[in-house]
Amino acid sequence: MPEFLELLPPGIALESFLDKIQSAPEVEKIEVKGALGRVTQEDIRAPHALPSFPRSTVDGYAVRAGDTHGASESLPIYLNLVGEVEMGRKAQFTLGPTHCGLIHTGGMLPSGADAVVMLENTQVAKPGEIEVLRAAAVGENVIKVGEDVLESEIVIPKGSLLRAPEIGGLLALGITDIHVYKQPRVAIISSGDEVVPPNADINPGQVRDINSYTLSALVEGVGGIPKRYGIIADNQADLYEAASRALAECDLVVITAGSSASARDLTSRVISDLGEPGVISHGVNVRPGKPTILGACKIAGGDYPKPIIGLPGNPVSALVIAILFVEPTIDYLHGLQTPQIRPQIKARVTLNLASKAGREDWVPVKLSSEGDTTSAEPIFGKSNLIFTLARADGLLHIPPQVTGLNAGDEVEVLLI
Amino acid sequence: MPEFLELLPPGIALESFLDKIQSAPEVEKIEVKGALGRVTQEDIRAPHALPSFPRSTVDGYAVRAGDTHGASESLPIYLNLVGEVEMGRKAQFTLGPTHCGLIHTGGMLPSGADAVVMLENTQVAKPGEIEVLRAAAVGENVIKVGEDVLESEIVIPKGSLLRAPEIGGLLALGITDIHVYKQPRVAIISSGDEVVPPNADINPGQVRDINSYTLSALVEGVGGIPKRYGIIADNQADLYEAASRALAECDLVVITAGSSASARDLTSRVISDLGEPGVISHGVNVRPGKPTILGACKIAGGDYPKPIIGLPGNPVSALVIAILFVEPTIDYLHGLQTPQIRPQIKARVTLNLASKAGREDWVPVKLSSEGDTTSAEPIFGKSNLIFTLARADGLLHIPPQVTGLNAGDEVEVLLI
Repeated sequence: MPEFLELLPPGIALESFLDKIQSAPEVEKIEVKGALGRVTQEDIRAPHALPSFPRSTVDGYAVRAGDTHGASESLPIYLNLVGEVEMGRKAQFTLGPTHCGLIHTGGMLPSGADAVVMLENTQVAKPGEIEVLRAAAVGENVIKVGEDVLESEIVIPKGSLLRAPEIGGLLALGITDIHVYKQPRVAIISSGDEVVPPNADINPGQVRDINSYTLSALVEGVGGIPKRYGIIADNQADLYEAASRALAECDLVVITAGSSASARDLTSRVISDLGEPGVISHGVNVRPGKPTILGACKIAGGDYPKPIIGLPGNPVSALVIAILFVEPTIDYLHGLQTPQIRPQIKARVTLNLASKAGREDWVPVKLSSEGDTTSAEPIFGKSNLIFTLARADGLLHIPPQVTGLNAGDEVEVLLI
Repeated sequence: MPEFLELLPPGIALESFLDKIQSAPEVEKIEVKGALGRVTQEDIRAPHALPSFPRSTVDGYAVRAGDTHGASESLPIYLNLVGEVEMGRKAQFTLGPTHCGLIHTGGMLPSGADAVVMLENTQVAKPGEIEVLRAAAVGENVIKVGEDVLESEIVIPKGSLLRAPEIGGLLALGITDIHVYKQPRVAIISSGDEVVPPNADINPGQVRDINSYTLSALVEGVGGIPKRYGIIADNQADLYEAASRALAECDLVVITAGSSASARDLTSRVISDLGEPGVISHGVNVRPGKPTILGACKIAGGDYPKPIIGLPGNPVSALVIAILFVEPTIDYLHGLQTPQIRPQIKARVTLNLASKAGREDWVPVKLSSEGDTTSAEPIFGKSNLIFTLARADGLLHIPPQVTGLNAGDEVEVLLI
């Protein structure tokens, strides 16, 4: 099989592939409240300190810490209550010596105060007089101005993924609009003479197109915009035409090949014809998914080569390879500085598993928990069987250097 | 603090809370291709076997296994090539004794064939004659009819989450529409006299509303439909009115309380007033998030009590408690049979951490990887600081029975 002469492990194949393509996403301005999953195009600086005023972290009395020096249950200190801080307002009073003011969690410290004594450490001696049973240090139970962020500090660097906490942080600073990178447009082409649309009745020998839809779901899940180009027959002219249009319109093209070797060769030839550098690697040392094709093509009038990934036609391999290659490529094209952390959990494998040295294996597993132990039970099935994957919670990872696992070994499981 | 007399650990508090509410989601029919993240309302049965015809898993020659008996490199067997199976079609020929037919991966076995010999184990002797260098067993390199699923087998049980593989499986069977549960509508109410909208300039003492938006993001992430009811002042009549409207219109009501104890008591009083059973538990043994309120209210004309969750007002506690309580409640209301697996990874904590026996702690951490080891570095900061969370990759879990961690201990980190 000349096409598989030099098989790289997926990690290395991905790295050399990303090296050859460029990430130059366009920019747009959007509302922060709708920015979940988007990537910042600029370093965001705080327009003001946060908090912008000293806040109490407890319910209690605002005090001048020095006044409480030496206070204890046996020797309380007595302070004069001069007012109550209303929530959302500046106190209408100032604390002089031996004064204190009632304050609630989140309330703004009155001028003159530098600490708060918790309600539990006080007692009302008589109306207007408070017994303090414990000394307070300067700054105790107080969030200082700028304790979260300082004015003009970079709070979110360029190239960051916006999750719920980042959205909260931006809004806390009054930043309601933001420049982000446009989401990568991902073309999905299904090819294969045997493939028909999902709503078609099937004749003997035909199978329904499912890759277009499983891949769309996956692309959306990591922040890409899927664009389906339909089912293309296994002939070079049609596939070239569709891929060429997709390359012009999108940032990444994903082709699921027909399942035969000749159909895979077709994908490879089309990629070579579309532009330089063409096929970067053909075949990856991974199971399932060995016949993966990684390429890039600079089309006429284009500024740089755009990536094309040829996935194996069978749906399980296609999904595994999409997780290993398409997802990180989308992260890269989206301008992310560090790729998204893929959700994975540790578990104990329930059976012995063999693996070839140098090959990375991904085995569908069902997870179950008992007490603190999570077990991963391999689901065996030929890699063409989509319901093998539908029955699985995740994919067990056998790294290239590992030649086998024993029942009970701890393994990483990528959630799907 | 009488409100915290009996503090349950979060797991037990959640269980007794879910026991008191009901999951009775409505049903709708939708397209499978748009059903990612939805939950099946019926057992889905296969309308036909999958595959529906015997398929080759390799490129090679379809044979009658018996004809290859004893074949080896030194003693090959010679077969007559009677045709080629086209992809997507039934073979135009039948295999008689000593016949073979060229077949591609995914091709349909011709009638009479019961195995496939890989191309690598054959040689063309002369035009029309194939040398077979290795015997094939019956069924070798073939996926049998129904090997993935049998006709009328339950392929996806009621109450299952639809991920990419399930969507693929349904479409493979030609199922393009499906009955699912409607997504839970989740009302989000922010309360607090100190809270102003994110686009407002803030005066001393005021803070911007961020919980409405971080919680919306979280609700959407697990398949709920967020509906924001705005910022309500800390008074019983206004909060009652808003919560009452929210209860009538939504399936779950989430109130982020003003941060003071009196504001929290207000939430609790409003929940008691809205209907039976009212407050189920007030206070949970977790940090951050102790002042959490879990309740349920059967409103006039309602069939069953609907859940209300009172979250602490500070944004970090609010998010942690939303992950611990709001997310699983949405799963339950959505009709999921088993809650979604929360993405978490194992890591080694970089510092000693103390924790009170009986209390569950969630500590924001920054993750970093070196070789096979992932380290979790605690980010310290008062729980009110939203950027503490924005700097974190996840929340390190200290279970109730653990009283402390040593640097280097392996811990679970929930990704955020």
